Amino acid sequence: MLEVKTLAQVNQIIADRFGHLRTVNENSTLQSALGRRLSQDILSNEYVPNFNRSTVDGFAVISADVFGSSESIPAILTLAGQSVMGEHNPLELQRGTCVYVPTGGELPEGADAVVMLEYAEDYGDGTIGVLKPGTPGVNLIFKGDDLKPGQIIYQQGHKLDAADIGTLSALGFTDVPVWRSPLIGLISTGDELVEPGKPISMGQIRDVNDPMLTAALAKCGARAHSYGILKDDPEAIREVILEAIEVCDGLIITGGTSVGIQDTIPDLVSELGSLLVHGVAAKPGKPTLVGAIREKPVFGLPGNPVAAFFMFLILMKPLIDSMMSGYSEEIQLSMPLTIAVPSNHGREDLLPVQIENGQAKPIIGKSGLVTTLSNAGGYIRIPRDKEGLRKGELVDVILF
Amino acid sequence: MLEVKTLAQVNQIIADRFGHLRTVNENSTLQSALGRRLSQDILSNEYVPNFNRSTVDGFAVISADVFGSSESIPAILTLAGQSVMGEHNPLELQRGTCVYVPTGGELPEGADAVVMLEYAEDYGDGTIGVLKPGTPGVNLIFKGDDLKPGQIIYQQGHKLDAADIGTLSALGFTDVPVWRSPLIGLISTGDELVEPGKPISMGQIRDVNDPMLTAALAKCGARAHSYGILKDDPEAIREVILEAIEVCDGLIITGGTSVGIQDTIPDLVSELGSLLVHGVAAKPGKPTLVGAIREKPVFGLPGNPVAAFFMFLILMKPLIDSMMSGYSEEIQLSMPLTIAVPSNHGREDLLPVQIENGQAKPIIGKSGLVTTLSNAGGYIRIPRDKEGLRKGELVDVILF
Repeated sequence: MLEVKTLAQVNQIIADRFGHLRTVNENSTLQSALGRRLSQDILSNEYVPNFNRSTVDGFAVISADVFGSSESIPAILTLAGQSVMGEHNPLELQRGTCVYVPTGGELPEGADAVVMLEYAEDYGDGTIGVLKPGTPGVNLIFKGDDLKPGQIIYQQGHKLDAADIGTLSALGFTDVPVWRSPLIGLISTGDELVEPGKPISMGQIRDVNDPMLTAALAKCGARAHSYGILKDDPEAIREVILEAIEVCDGLIITGGTSVGIQDTIPDLVSELGSLLVHGVAAKPGKPTLVGAIREKPVFGLPGNPVAAFFMFLILMKPLIDSMMSGYSEEIQLSMPLTIAVPSNHGREDLLPVQIENGQAKPIIGKSGLVTTLSNAGGYIRIPRDKEGLRKGELVDVILF
Repeated sequence: MLEVKTLAQVNQIIADRFGHLRTVNENSTLQSALGRRLSQDILSNEYVPNFNRSTVDGFAVISADVFGSSESIPAILTLAGQSVMGEHNPLELQRGTCVYVPTGGELPEGADAVVMLEYAEDYGDGTIGVLKPGTPGVNLIFKGDDLKPGQIIYQQGHKLDAADIGTLSALGFTDVPVWRSPLIGLISTGDELVEPGKPISMGQIRDVNDPMLTAALAKCGARAHSYGILKDDPEAIREVILEAIEVCDGLIITGGTSVGIQDTIPDLVSELGSLLVHGVAAKPGKPTLVGAIREKPVFGLPGNPVAAFFMFLILMKPLIDSMMSGYSEEIQLSMPLTIAVPSNHGREDLLPVQIENGQAKPIIGKSGLVTTLSNAGGYIRIPRDKEGLRKGELVDVILF
């Protein structure tokens, strides 16, 4: 019999034992840094922008000169020159004068407002009529408004999104320090398993977990090293575990963790390191194990791909994020259930749901069907102490 | 003056003019198909599983034989053999007998239920006592329960997630037909722009839009071909547009679209094709243009990176999805606003927000600051006819 622990207990055991683990730093070019996590705080090294800049096409003015101006009583200013895009503007604005500035152009020294072209009239005699007052700071960005040297822009662990790539680019970064993606070894076990793409005979099935978890690892920023399918042979499995644990930051072994004839994996994990968890109070996912070999995390996930997928998301993904100094971000949407769902006291139920017209439609099928996940957009967690959910009840759907 | 259209009108113009465009088909290996969109419906070609399979360690039985059994009155069955993992089970179950089957093992012909090991007692004399009845179909998966030949698993346009890679693998697929990623040409214009990583002088800024949009394109499944930074020289820009439109599925030109001195781009688009939209009733984003050159979409986005980013998300991303037969999926979370926000009648306001403790905190800054997007998790759209939002009002945050 398994000594089951709750998912919350298992998350805590994993955090306590492996929460300090980090991969190493490496540099990534900015172009290939999308989705990666920073391994250092990033400080601004420059002023952005590095000059006072207009945000409109118009006339740079001293706001006091146009105070109270209107269409009937325009402020009349002498046009003292123009700013040229991409060039330093050496002009210094004198009282009673203005300078034409295109969007993005540098303001003359002394200007504190820009009047939009639409609110100015060129009298053709070297003077400009301003038809609307400009408050100090309007239609311009001052030097350093965006960033000043020494300012922390991002903290380590931050996951870079498209806009961040733009911001770093503005600062002149061409590469950034990131955490190396954790390398996770994948071992599939089971005498019934056949490699992807190979024909199968009666009694055999193709290995789903290796390709599925490889993709799931990629999606959360890790890399997979596949060790293929091993027969239920303790000697052979021991050898591969010892080889993989040297190279990888962690291991996932699927299959062979049930208390049946094949309890090879828990025995091996106990022998080579320590077995921290064997059995979780969740359905699906009960025969999950967590261990440490050479202080690295080893997960034994059920052969049932739905169970393996859920246990990966709930137990392993947070650890992968933590290895890169980040937090696990789950997106939860609250929506009503389309049908009532029974649940068992004493274990947490994990239920894939399809999202349809803003409602969560539970996908209820036999345990272990691969297609259960095909139409699912996410899943719900039904707490242990809950005996079921009512039709129409609001549930938190965690998106895949 | 720009003749502004609403975002909804512009989306409709784009859908009408370019909604029929598709990229070409290509094959992708299953390993590299994560996040790609299928270009054909995928049909199952096999039974999954291809044999009746136990989902527990236990005894395959004929359910009628164990009807009414209990701990006090067990059903006594003769053990007729065992199923071996990965091998075809040639046994045929006779009334009054049972066969040991491990999880995932093939059931003998005639079995319609599996009794878990926990509810059986081995008397050691070749007989097994069953302590609990098994209803037909319990603890097993019948041949084809998951998939049957000819069944549609995914429709074209479906975006492949990790679990889908697993499902396709179970069926023996090693590669899949996908839509080629649209190739989008990027042209940055502006005399003030400097290439990423180069030092800048007063009056110059580094190009943010090219690296940011390259990353944004990658994130939505497209590829960018960068044509670099062009000075505001109509001849040079015309030449590059003509070269790019031959190679690419669409173009994005940033900068140079305002009605100031530089109105090169709208003139060029009109000359080389047709200008469909010039000016949208949105802030930021007003000086956006949409045109068609050789029947391919050309977007002129504002030089202001925040505006360029929003216009990309709202106008271009749906088109990219449509080019791969897919729908644009926006994730919206409803949450209260932390502060009141004023808004202007007559245009749609796009406001980046930070998500903090389940609340949307508007990021209000000067127009055109790159860092506006650095801390934003998403944005809200304030409709044209709304004059503002109240503090605590529930808003739909669209996640980046």
